[in-house]
Amino acid sequence: MANESVDTLTPLFNALADPTRRAVIETLAAGPRPVSDLAFPHDMALPSFLKHLDRLEQAGVITSKKAGRVRTCTLRPEAFEPVQNWLDRERARWSGALDRLSAHLDALEKEPKQ
Amino acid sequence: MANESVDTLTPLFNALADPTRRAVIETLAAGPRPVSDLAFPHDMALPSFLKHLDRLEQAGVITSKKAGRVRTCTLRPEAFEPVQNWLDRERARWSGALDRLSAHLDALEKEPKQ
Repeated sequence: MANESVDTLTPLFNALADPTRRAVIETLAAGPRPVSDLAFPHDMALPSFLKHLDRLEQAGVITSKKAGRVRTCTLRPEAFEPVQNWLDRERARWSGALDRLSAHLDALEKEPKQ
Repeated sequence: MANESVDTLTPLFNALADPTRRAVIETLAAGPRPVSDLAFPHDMALPSFLKHLDRLEQAGVITSKKAGRVRTCTLRPEAFEPVQNWLDRERARWSGALDRLSAHLDALEKEPKQ
């Protein structure tokens, strides 16, 4: 578990923990875009914006490809699978805990009163 | 959108971007635990561990309550809703984009060949 967390979930959650990076993801969810289009709505120096793209690329959330002078970014939706799997696993765990608690309370209720 | 992201998603994703904090969540998913039980498996000074619990509490992921000398932590599973909602929204967006792309390719295929 620890290894899986260190290798994929930590950089992934870090990549998502920033409003600029989430805005880039939201734009790329509609389809690939050149870096210049992505940078345009953000009031930020280009080098700072490129660092955000780097973080996303390093976390495997996006890929980028240069053709001539234009670098185009593409979302990798499959990158979110570890996040979804982690959420699903935790949800299953606490649902199970709630079910056990509820069964326990039912059993207490059915016990003959002292 | 920007406000919603700044207020809830950023601290939430930050809270999840650490293996110790995720391990605490995984333990608490099975039910409330005293701080001492939570700290035990982590090879870490108690003040450092308490900082992790603070981060989780500030992000709304856990609550804690002191009774006598024992502080007990409880998971707030509803805290994950913004994360799940964000993932669902992005998934809907890129599924829509894929559907439109596929419809476009179908239309191209049906066009009379030159």
